[in-house]
Amino acid sequence: MNRQEALALDAQDPLAPLREQFVLPSGVIYLDGNSLGVLPKATAARVQQVVTQEWGTDLIRSWNSAGWIDLPQRVGDKIARLVGAGPGQLVVADSTSVNLFKVLSAALSISAADAPQRKTVLSERSNFPTDLYIAEALCRERGLRLQLAEPEELPGLLNEDTAVLMLTHVNYRTGRMHDMAALTAAAHRAGALTVWDLAHSAGAVPVELLGADADFAVGCGYKYLNGGPGAPAFVWAHPRHASRFWQPLAGWMGHAAPFAFTPGYRPAEGISRYLCGTPAVLSLAALECGVDAVLVSEARGGMAALRTKSLALTRLFAQQVQAHCPQLQLVSPQEDASRGSQVCLGHAEIGYPVIQALIARGVIGDFRAGDKSHPASALDILRFGFTPLYLRYVDAWDAAEHLRQVLDSGEWQRPEFNRRQAVT
Amino acid sequence: MNRQEALALDAQDPLAPLREQFVLPSGVIYLDGNSLGVLPKATAARVQQVVTQEWGTDLIRSWNSAGWIDLPQRVGDKIARLVGAGPGQLVVADSTSVNLFKVLSAALSISAADAPQRKTVLSERSNFPTDLYIAEALCRERGLRLQLAEPEELPGLLNEDTAVLMLTHVNYRTGRMHDMAALTAAAHRAGALTVWDLAHSAGAVPVELLGADADFAVGCGYKYLNGGPGAPAFVWAHPRHASRFWQPLAGWMGHAAPFAFTPGYRPAEGISRYLCGTPAVLSLAALECGVDAVLVSEARGGMAALRTKSLALTRLFAQQVQAHCPQLQLVSPQEDASRGSQVCLGHAEIGYPVIQALIARGVIGDFRAGDKSHPASALDILRFGFTPLYLRYVDAWDAAEHLRQVLDSGEWQRPEFNRRQAVT
Repeated sequence: MNRQEALALDAQDPLAPLREQFVLPSGVIYLDGNSLGVLPKATAARVQQVVTQEWGTDLIRSWNSAGWIDLPQRVGDKIARLVGAGPGQLVVADSTSVNLFKVLSAALSISAADAPQRKTVLSERSNFPTDLYIAEALCRERGLRLQLAEPEELPGLLNEDTAVLMLTHVNYRTGRMHDMAALTAAAHRAGALTVWDLAHSAGAVPVELLGADADFAVGCGYKYLNGGPGAPAFVWAHPRHASRFWQPLAGWMGHAAPFAFTPGYRPAEGISRYLCGTPAVLSLAALECGVDAVLVSEARGGMAALRTKSLALTRLFAQQVQAHCPQLQLVSPQEDASRGSQVCLGHAEIGYPVIQALIARGVIGDFRAGDKSHPASALDILRFGFTPLYLRYVDAWDAAEHLRQVLDSGEWQRPEFNRRQAVT
Repeated sequence: MNRQEALALDAQDPLAPLREQFVLPSGVIYLDGNSLGVLPKATAARVQQVVTQEWGTDLIRSWNSAGWIDLPQRVGDKIARLVGAGPGQLVVADSTSVNLFKVLSAALSISAADAPQRKTVLSERSNFPTDLYIAEALCRERGLRLQLAEPEELPGLLNEDTAVLMLTHVNYRTGRMHDMAALTAAAHRAGALTVWDLAHSAGAVPVELLGADADFAVGCGYKYLNGGPGAPAFVWAHPRHASRFWQPLAGWMGHAAPFAFTPGYRPAEGISRYLCGTPAVLSLAALECGVDAVLVSEARGGMAALRTKSLALTRLFAQQVQAHCPQLQLVSPQEDASRGSQVCLGHAEIGYPVIQALIARGVIGDFRAGDKSHPASALDILRFGFTPLYLRYVDAWDAAEHLRQVLDSGEWQRPEFNRRQAVT
C-alpha cells in the first residue's frame, strides 16, 4: 500500500468524523491510547463546570442537585452498553487493581462455599503484573495456589481443582485476545468461575459479558474509554452472583443505606455493594465525557464498526512494518480473530531506543521490557495501540514509515534515545 | 456577644487574609467544610492546566515531564507537615475506606506475628460507620473480635487480648476529640497497636503522629484539606512498621519496580508499598491546591494558630446557641481540649427540618440521624463544621442568629423542609 491509498481509505471511512470529538496535538501520531486515551474536546468544559459550579458554588448540595451520588451507576450504565452488560449491573469505582481484588475475593468466596475442594486460581503467565500480584496476595491469604500458563495451555489445565480462571481479555504485552465465550464455557464445564480484566478491551473490541456468560469483570477508565490519567475503573458481576457474596472492602458507599449511618454492614443489593469509599467526582465527570465519545459511535455501527476499522488499522501497520522492517518480529497475532487493538513488535536489544527515536518524531508508542526468566516472553516489546475512534489510515501508514526511517537511518543509536526515564 | 464584637474580632484576626484564597459563594455561610471543603481559587486553573496541557497536549509523556508519577509522594509530603509526620512517610492514594483496610490489615499482620494470642480490635461505638464496616470485614476474615465501647471506657478495655486500638481522632457525629498521645501510650502499655483515622483532624486540629508515637494513620482529602468531592485520601505508617508487612492490595504502583513489569510481587520499601493502582492525577492535582492553601498558614502560626481560631469560633457559636436556643442540646464537648473543629447540637425530633430551613437561608450545616439502638447516640445531630481557614467570627455569630430565628419563627415547620433527600 502507498500513502495515497491510505488517504483514500480515510476519505471513504464512515467513522472518520468521530475524530473531531478529540484534541489531537499537531505533529503527533498517538499510538498509545492503550496506555492513556486522548482528551475529548468536551472534557475540559465539563470538568470546569464541576469544579466551579457544582463544587465551587453549589458545594455539598451537589450530591443531590448535580446527581453526584448516582455517578458511579450512571457512568456504569453507559460503560455496560460497550461491554455487553445490562443496566444496573456495572459501577465505576476505585482502580482496576482494587476492583480485581473485590471480584476475585467474591469469586473465591463463592467457590469456597460451593466447591471447597477447589484450590487453584488459573491465569496466564504474561498477564498484567498487577493482576497476578493481587491474585498472589489473595491466594496466600486463602491458602490457594496460583497456577500460571501459556495461553494455549489454559483449556487443558481447567480441571476439578480450578476455582477461578482469571484472565485479561487482551494481553497488554502481546495484544493477543482470548476467546471469552469459549474459555468461559470451558471453565464452566470444569466447574470453575471466570474473572475477566477488560483493561485493553472496553471501547476497543466488542465484548459480550452476558453473551459469553462470564462471571465477573473489571476494566480501566483511562485507556480506550478516554477518561484521563488515573480515571476510576469499573466492576461488573453477573446478576446471578452480584448479591450472593460481598467483598471485604466494605465501605459505606456499598452499604444498603449509606446515609443512615447504621452500625453493622448490610451490603446493597446487586452491583452497588462493589462500591467502597466516596466516589471521585472530578474523575468520574471526566470519564463520563470519554465514554460518551465512544457511545457516539453507536449511530455509525458501534463497537462492530470500530472493530472493523481497528483490525484494518492494525493490519495495515503490521503489513507495512513486516514489508520494510525485517529486523522486528511481529509478536501480536497475525490472524484477526485473536488480535486486540494493538500491534506489538519484538526485538532482543534495540526496542527502547527505537521507541524513544519514534517519540522524538512525534510517533508515540511505548516500550515493555521482556521477562528474561521466561523464553515465551523474553523479547522486549515495541507496543503500538490503535484507537479506531480517532486514528486515521494515513496515521498507521505514516507511523510505519517513520519506524522504517528510524531503523534505516540508524537514528535510534543517538545517545539521548538510550537514557532511561522513570516511566517507560 | 453582639455582632459588632464579632466584627471587631475579625478586624484583629491575623488569619483573616487566608480567606482570600477561597471561592465563597455570596449569601452563604458554609459550616460544612467537615463534609466537603470549599474550592480554593487556585484549583480551577490548575485542574484546567492538567486537563488541557498535561493530558491534552503532552499526553502519556506527562508521567515523566509533569511528574505525575511522583504525585502521591509529593502531595503526601505536604500533608505530612500538617499531621506531624516526616517526609517520605505518607502517600496519597485511593479512598479513606480502602486505606483503612490496608493499614488495619498490616497492623493485624504485625500483631499476628508478634502476639498471635491477641484477638480483639477495639474501637468506639459511634466511630464512622465505614471504619467499623471495614474492621468488621477484616475481623471476620481473620477470626478476630471487634469490640465497641464508649470513649470513656476505652482505656479500661485495653488488655492482653487487644491487638489493635482503631479510632477516629475526632468523632464525626459528636466532634469529640480523643487524646491521641495518651491513648496511644495506653495501647502500647497494653501491648496493642494503634490505627488513627484523621478524617476530621487533618487541616483542622494539630496532629503529631510521630510525637504521639502512633502506629498507623489514614485521612481524608476532601474535608479540611479542600481537595474537592471524592478527592483521594492519605495513608501513613510509622517508619518502624512501614516496610515490615505489606497489605493485600498488592497493586503495581506499590511494587518496588512498577515499570519493570516483573512477575512476583516485591513491595516497595517504606510507605510507597501502600500505593495500589494508577494514581488519580486530576484529583491529586486538585488536592495539592487544597493542601497548599492550608500550608500558607505556616507563615501565620500554622496549625497552632488555626487551632486557636477554630476553638474561638466553635466557642462563640456554641455560647450563642446555648444562650438563645435552649431547645437544642450541646452534644460536642464544652471543654476546648476535647473538642474538634465542629459544634454538634442534638434534638430528638426536629433536627432534619431545622437544618433544611437553615440551608434555605444560606447557612449550610448538615444532619446526622441518631442511632436509636444505643442511648448514648440516640439523638439526631445538627452538625456545624468550622474551618478556621476561611470562616469569620461574624459568620459564627450570624449562623447562630439564623438558627435562633428558624426556631423562634417556627419556619422549620414548613412542609418543604421535611422532604427527605437522597443525601442528607
